[in-house]
Amino acid sequence: MALSIGVDVGGTKIAAGVVDEEGNVLATARRDSPATNRESIFATIADLANELAAQYDVESIGVGAAGFTSSDRNTMVYGTNLDWTGARIADEIAARTGKKVVVENDANAAGWAEARFGGGKGARNVLVVTLGTGVGGAVIIDGHLVRGAAGFAAEIGHINVVPDGRPCGCGQRGCLERYGSGTALGVNGWELAKFQPDYAARIIELSGGDQNKISGKAVTAAAREGDPAALECYARLGSALGLGLADLCAVLDPEVIVLTGGLTEAGDILLDPVRASFAEHLTARAHRPEIPIVISTSGQEAGLIGAADLARQD
Amino acid sequence: MALSIGVDVGGTKIAAGVVDEEGNVLATARRDSPATNRESIFATIADLANELAAQYDVESIGVGAAGFTSSDRNTMVYGTNLDWTGARIADEIAARTGKKVVVENDANAAGWAEARFGGGKGARNVLVVTLGTGVGGAVIIDGHLVRGAAGFAAEIGHINVVPDGRPCGCGQRGCLERYGSGTALGVNGWELAKFQPDYAARIIELSGGDQNKISGKAVTAAAREGDPAALECYARLGSALGLGLADLCAVLDPEVIVLTGGLTEAGDILLDPVRASFAEHLTARAHRPEIPIVISTSGQEAGLIGAADLARQD
Amino acid sequence: MALSIGVDVGGTKIAAGVVDEEGNVLATARRDSPATNRESIFATIADLANELAAQYDVESIGVGAAGFTSSDRNTMVYGTNLDWTGARIADEIAARTGKKVVVENDANAAGWAEARFGGGKGARNVLVVTLGTGVGGAVIIDGHLVRGAAGFAAEIGHINVVPDGRPCGCGQRGCLERYGSGTALGVNGWELAKFQPDYAARIIELSGGDQNKISGKAVTAAAREGDPAALECYARLGSALGLGLADLCAVLDPEVIVLTGGLTEAGDILLDPVRASFAEHLTARAHRPEIPIVISTSGQEAGLIGAADLARQD
Amino acid sequence: MALSIGVDVGGTKIAAGVVDEEGNVLATARRDSPATNRESIFATIADLANELAAQYDVESIGVGAAGFTSSDRNTMVYGTNLDWTGARIADEIAARTGKKVVVENDANAAGWAEARFGGGKGARNVLVVTLGTGVGGAVIIDGHLVRGAAGFAAEIGHINVVPDGRPCGCGQRGCLERYGSGTALGVNGWELAKFQPDYAARIIELSGGDQNKISGKAVTAAAREGDPAALECYARLGSALGLGLADLCAVLDPEVIVLTGGLTEAGDILLDPVRASFAEHLTARAHRPEIPIVISTSGQEAGLIGAADLARQD
Repeated sequence: MALSIGVDVGGTKIAAGVVDEEGNVLATARRDSPATNRESIFATIADLANELAAQYDVESIGVGAAGFTSSDRNTMVYGTNLDWTGARIADEIAARTGKKVVVENDANAAGWAEARFGGGKGARNVLVVTLGTGVGGAVIIDGHLVRGAAGFAAEIGHINVVPDGRPCGCGQRGCLERYGSGTALGVNGWELAKFQPDYAARIIELSGGDQNKISGKAVTAAAREGDPAALECYARLGSALGLGLADLCAVLDPEVIVLTGGLTEAGDILLDPVRASFAEHLTARAHRPEIPIVISTSGQEAGLIGAADLARQD
Repeated sequence: MALSIGVDVGGTKIAAGVVDEEGNVLATARRDSPATNRESIFATIADLANELAAQYDVESIGVGAAGFTSSDRNTMVYGTNLDWTGARIADEIAARTGKKVVVENDANAAGWAEARFGGGKGARNVLVVTLGTGVGGAVIIDGHLVRGAAGFAAEIGHINVVPDGRPCGCGQRGCLERYGSGTALGVNGWELAKFQPDYAARIIELSGGDQNKISGKAVTAAAREGDPAALECYARLGSALGLGLADLCAVLDPEVIVLTGGLTEAGDILLDPVRASFAEHLTARAHRPEIPIVISTSGQEAGLIGAADLARQD
Repeated sequence: MALSIGVDVGGTKIAAGVVDEEGNVLATARRDSPATNRESIFATIADLANELAAQYDVESIGVGAAGFTSSDRNTMVYGTNLDWTGARIADEIAARTGKKVVVENDANAAGWAEARFGGGKGARNVLVVTLGTGVGGAVIIDGHLVRGAAGFAAEIGHINVVPDGRPCGCGQRGCLERYGSGTALGVNGWELAKFQPDYAARIIELSGGDQNKISGKAVTAAAREGDPAALECYARLGSALGLGLADLCAVLDPEVIVLTGGLTEAGDILLDPVRASFAEHLTARAHRPEIPIVISTSGQEAGLIGAADLARQD
Repeated sequence: MALSIGVDVGGTKIAAGVVDEEGNVLATARRDSPATNRESIFATIADLANELAAQYDVESIGVGAAGFTSSDRNTMVYGTNLDWTGARIADEIAARTGKKVVVENDANAAGWAEARFGGGKGARNVLVVTLGTGVGGAVIIDGHLVRGAAGFAAEIGHINVVPDGRPCGCGQRGCLERYGSGTALGVNGWELAKFQPDYAARIIELSGGDQNKISGKAVTAAAREGDPAALECYARLGSALGLGLADLCAVLDPEVIVLTGGLTEAGDILLDPVRASFAEHLTARAHRPEIPIVISTSGQEAGLIGAADLARQD
């Protein structure tokens, strides 16, 4: 059975693991990320991989990192966190390990793991949506990961849901990420606290009494207690997400939508308004199979599992 | 060189043609469509195919028709125009011709022809947008046509661009098709004529003086003369289309967007406002390669060319 | 008891009546409107007034007509229908009758009658809203008619309710008139018929089978039968009107809102969605007295009753 | 010449002044506000008034305070800040001073001063808009202050400008106050800082480096330097205000719009985008006299000047 090593390169940690064809992690290793030095990063990745390869018979290595990667999965065209824009990462690591190496966007890698071994298991057309500080995702079509012509595909957090709405770091206004992320949930709470402080009293209280410290977590905690203001924050978040997911399904027609990321810990508090809005907005809903929306939490290791598995794909 | 037959099954006509690997049509044949009788349709398609196959050495047959087709390309799951919902069309035609046969959605087939031999030639990631009475399209990713889990993919006319906007036949409100199609262009003109008749005088005049006969064609004719009301109609259409295309690129990241369909005859009158709005709304525009928007008019035969070529694909 | 003559100058008819202080019409007279000749209009108005004055002891004459009138109630600053822009109408009629004469905007005059003798009777702060082909109105504050600095006040049909919405004859987009009038109701029906013909089948049927003949009346007829598409048309109309009325109440704080005009014949079909939307949108609703919304139909003579009564006011 | 005393009752201070018929303040006195005790407030107001009345020959006293006042100008129906909801304030103060006393809403009083002696001087139809932490105003029609049936008129900060927009303390969403006040300007800056920190760097810097301390003042300071992000904040504020003012003019048709309040210190930085948006949105603009928008800053004493002058009115 072919084993593969996955490496998840973050801003502060680099984690690696041996992954089998079922997505099981057989062993892991971890180091601090020497973020400021390109050579050191390569060396650290290679050390981790070689260390694991000494114990297991692995055929390939997948490196997942933030940024846009080339379509031949060799080069980091634009690296978001680390100083390696333009680096031929796959070649560099291959030279240091003697293995087949590919580099993939980390969100794509984690999404791939969810699609293959998590909530999308068994499906060939999957939409994975990561709800955290932002809204990211991965699109799997006919069993293949969609990367886009320039590696920019699946930026699903940046479809428009509110014309001329909240400003976004991407330069637009009204992006799904500004209304559907954990950050957005916190902003929903902040707005209520700013303009309707009595109504939002419980959210403020759970934020240590400081309106400026309101986060999605505080809103979720209040929502768990049944606080109406917090539930309104979720209703608005769900309304935006449902609309966005419906738009995505008009284009992609997946078998299943897998939600993942920190916000999904809210469970049905999140799912209920998302599903209601999705059902309301899905085009031709009466004529098509139902598209289930499920939560999957493969956890912290999804990134390296996905990277490892993608290295096995042609 | 492998030849293939493409069949374009319409509501009134059935057209067939022999297509080579470059997308050239070597011969054609055409019959009236016996729309009300399933057996007659099969017989007619087979007759046309056998007639052409007698003259050329063809290996496969692709049938394009309106409706949702199964993922194995055999069955018409839901036929929009003809009485053949549930029919195993590929099997039926194969039994009558002895060839490999596939059935494809007609918009997908025409879009595939545009992507392979028209404006998307040479690109592996292409978004084809058909602007006619509706807004349809085809999505090509990594050289493969995207059909979706249930054959419903690429319904790009039904992403939302105006919250709670014009009602749509799909059951939603504010779909791109209601703001970006030739029909929408006519409605834009009708609205101006209804509420600002002096301003819309030239559009009304070019509609034979009858406000109720205003169509996209009349608006285009007035726009060609530089009529401000007609140009406003195009500005609004372009604004909606540009927003919709930007959303699609956030998800799909194509190399090129190919516009086709009757509305594209307007040329730059259409392209200019679409490109302006697209540039305004594209996420992370400064960091990504330019995505050109081009017009391609492979013409009436795109449907059969695409069906023939798709029959050659696995 | 002081009697006064009211004259309602329309595009095709001129109607006059003797009106007492309770708003009762004691006698009427009527002529065709010699619309194209300014002198003839003055002569016709004076003839009608003198004919009635010969039978009743009247002190004053009020002339109501479409257009913007000067604040001294003498001049037609801008006449919408007739060729008398700039005419000193009050002076002209006074010279021909020997009575005190004032000229008033016809919608204001009719609204005044509704406020004084109709649904606003007994109230000193009244908002009258006329729902017909357009949306007009009259504002009464502390017992006085609000005319505005230039006679343009109470153009309540032209507050914005839908950003960048339907085009309006006033040069804007999204005016209340475009979403809340009888015409708008017909457009709501037309849109459904255009894009969801099956759903709108009963509306089309009641329009003689011709989508282009759909009017507010046909929608109302279908709504009376409980037709879901027609009720949706009313729901959208009511939603817009309720929002607009809530905005007006934030500014004017009336005791009562009086709806009048042809559309009010729909009764509760109209009132129910208007009241629901109004309650949903009214600012500080929990802290203020309820503002009732009532229908009043003083009928065709409201214009001349109001003009007569306004002539009695200083 | 009739002198009158105006009293401005705030949450922390009570200020009184003797005001002549030209709006000049001849003398002032000031005390801390004993906010928690109703009797003490009455006594303090009466002390201040009696102290001034001992020096000047005054005929009447006007008390301005936050809250909704009865139409007979005697009772505080609902007091926003102080514990005197339901108090017959005019009677109470009259009993302690022997003068004619009226109570008025403080925003109305300040607006009246602006209309009579400030930017609206000489006009009989004036719209005064106060831009501070909120958006308030006063409406003067035919020389009379509009109070509304229940004292709730001129709540112009609560007309809707953004459907389903930012939440408002009044219970609605999308109120003008949430997009056109100084607070809103700060929120515009906060949103940019939250989602586009690089772009908003200068605004953050001028807020002591703390995003949570961004206020309208910091945005204004940055805008004065020509900072693009700050000017975008003003552009959005001006767009909302211009739309709101246009709606108000459709209803009220004033001769002049007077802007006042702390935000007007920005001068043309504020006026330019407001005027542009107003011109863009005003109904029938081509057919009506221009309505100038001016800034007036009668300053801190506008409240007591207006209260004093209103006491002189019947």
